[in-house]
Amino acid sequence: MSKIKLSEISTGVPDNLKKKKAELKTIEMAIKIGQLQHKLYAERKQSLLVVLQGMDASGKDGTIKTTFADCNPTGIDTFGFKKPTSEEMAHDFLWRIHKRTPEHGNIMVFNRSHYEDILIQRVHKWIDFDRVEKRMKAINAFEKLLEFDNDTKVLKFYMHISPERQLEKLQERIDDPEKNWKHKAEDWEERKLWSEYMEAYEYAINQSDIPWHIVPCDKRWYRNYHISKIVLKALEDMHPEMPVLKEHDE
Amino acid sequence: MSKIKLSEISTGVPDNLKKKKAELKTIEMAIKIGQLQHKLYAERKQSLLVVLQGMDASGKDGTIKTTFADCNPTGIDTFGFKKPTSEEMAHDFLWRIHKRTPEHGNIMVFNRSHYEDILIQRVHKWIDFDRVEKRMKAINAFEKLLEFDNDTKVLKFYMHISPERQLEKLQERIDDPEKNWKHKAEDWEERKLWSEYMEAYEYAINQSDIPWHIVPCDKRWYRNYHISKIVLKALEDMHPEMPVLKEHDE
Repeated sequence: MSKIKLSEISTGVPDNLKKKKAELKTIEMAIKIGQLQHKLYAERKQSLLVVLQGMDASGKDGTIKTTFADCNPTGIDTFGFKKPTSEEMAHDFLWRIHKRTPEHGNIMVFNRSHYEDILIQRVHKWIDFDRVEKRMKAINAFEKLLEFDNDTKVLKFYMHISPERQLEKLQERIDDPEKNWKHKAEDWEERKLWSEYMEAYEYAINQSDIPWHIVPCDKRWYRNYHISKIVLKALEDMHPEMPVLKEHDE
Repeated sequence: MSKIKLSEISTGVPDNLKKKKAELKTIEMAIKIGQLQHKLYAERKQSLLVVLQGMDASGKDGTIKTTFADCNPTGIDTFGFKKPTSEEMAHDFLWRIHKRTPEHGNIMVFNRSHYEDILIQRVHKWIDFDRVEKRMKAINAFEKLLEFDNDTKVLKFYMHISPERQLEKLQERIDDPEKNWKHKAEDWEERKLWSEYMEAYEYAINQSDIPWHIVPCDKRWYRNYHISKIVLKALEDMHPEMPVLKEHDE
């Protein structure tokens, strides 16, 4: 399999797609996603794990709001992995992740994930490359476990944004009072390590057994359209079915 | 590596060992284990996971009481895995196990474990052999993760009892009012599947990356002596060290 080079993949919008049309389609897809989520929840036999990874301001939060707009909150959870607590630090890196995996019938969206343990930790040299390799193998075994033993579909998205577009969005967070709450000084520091992050992402993407979806994220409307399309297709392929009462259940 | 055949391994006592001497030695070892556990707890850098597996009445509970008699309960936990709850059933088989793994500084003793998911479940044909094989691979990856990413030493014991000795002990549970509370009708049912269980145990033992200790369990005193010796050696090899205040900590 040929290796993915992120610098060779566009962060922009394909020529043949119109914004208005895509936005309408995204709303229609959100409705269908909601309908399938209802069936998944009623069936209680499978689950969906969505992993969102990307640089700051690539749009992880916005995507969740748009793609899952029509889901019943009872059957969907999101979890944002931040700096580990001291209890989490006293366990292996997958300990806090495994606890949050979705149960039958549910969708779980990870806003950042176990991949941070081979991204930020590698870029800042908190771990050596030997540990990165061992963790990568552990991740592959872990994701396979979810699939074969719990019928969990694992959908992973790399939110592909250009450094120029990120700069605009980080600046907006300073200039626009409505967006001030999103501003974090660290984001400007992490930005300086862009090429190290790209290298770490490429490794994670190329070494993963379960393939990643690379999502061009410079335009919000295209990012949402692209992700919703993949989520909808995945849910359709799972064929969740409403359980039907059998005679002896009546 | 040559494969282990359980039928070729004695469940009895070696000729050269005297009961009184072994019992005394076991008490001495319990004291040393307690001292090392104290250091492990103070150090908070490593942990120990003890897995006890064996047929009913092989002595899992008795071993815990004797071997860890001198440990401070604050730094040691035991967990008996029973029939999974409905929440546990709605996740992969390692989900409930991973949650209970020891944090830095602690000892955890599993009374039954993730191995039940390829033992009882295989023997009763609740899962097919393809799933047994996949789960075995997942177990190897999981135990490796605990070792490399959390400095958890994984010590696994197969409590090797003869069917004749088990029969005596199950009968005691009926005849002796003090032991009535341990009687379970299912134990007599499971007993009928002895050879199927031996086959499942041999597979688990032979396919494990982290080796098992086979403990002859027909005599309680020898069982306790044997296990305490291995636990003590493992703790010594971990070299837990009391942290010393550095100048700037004073």
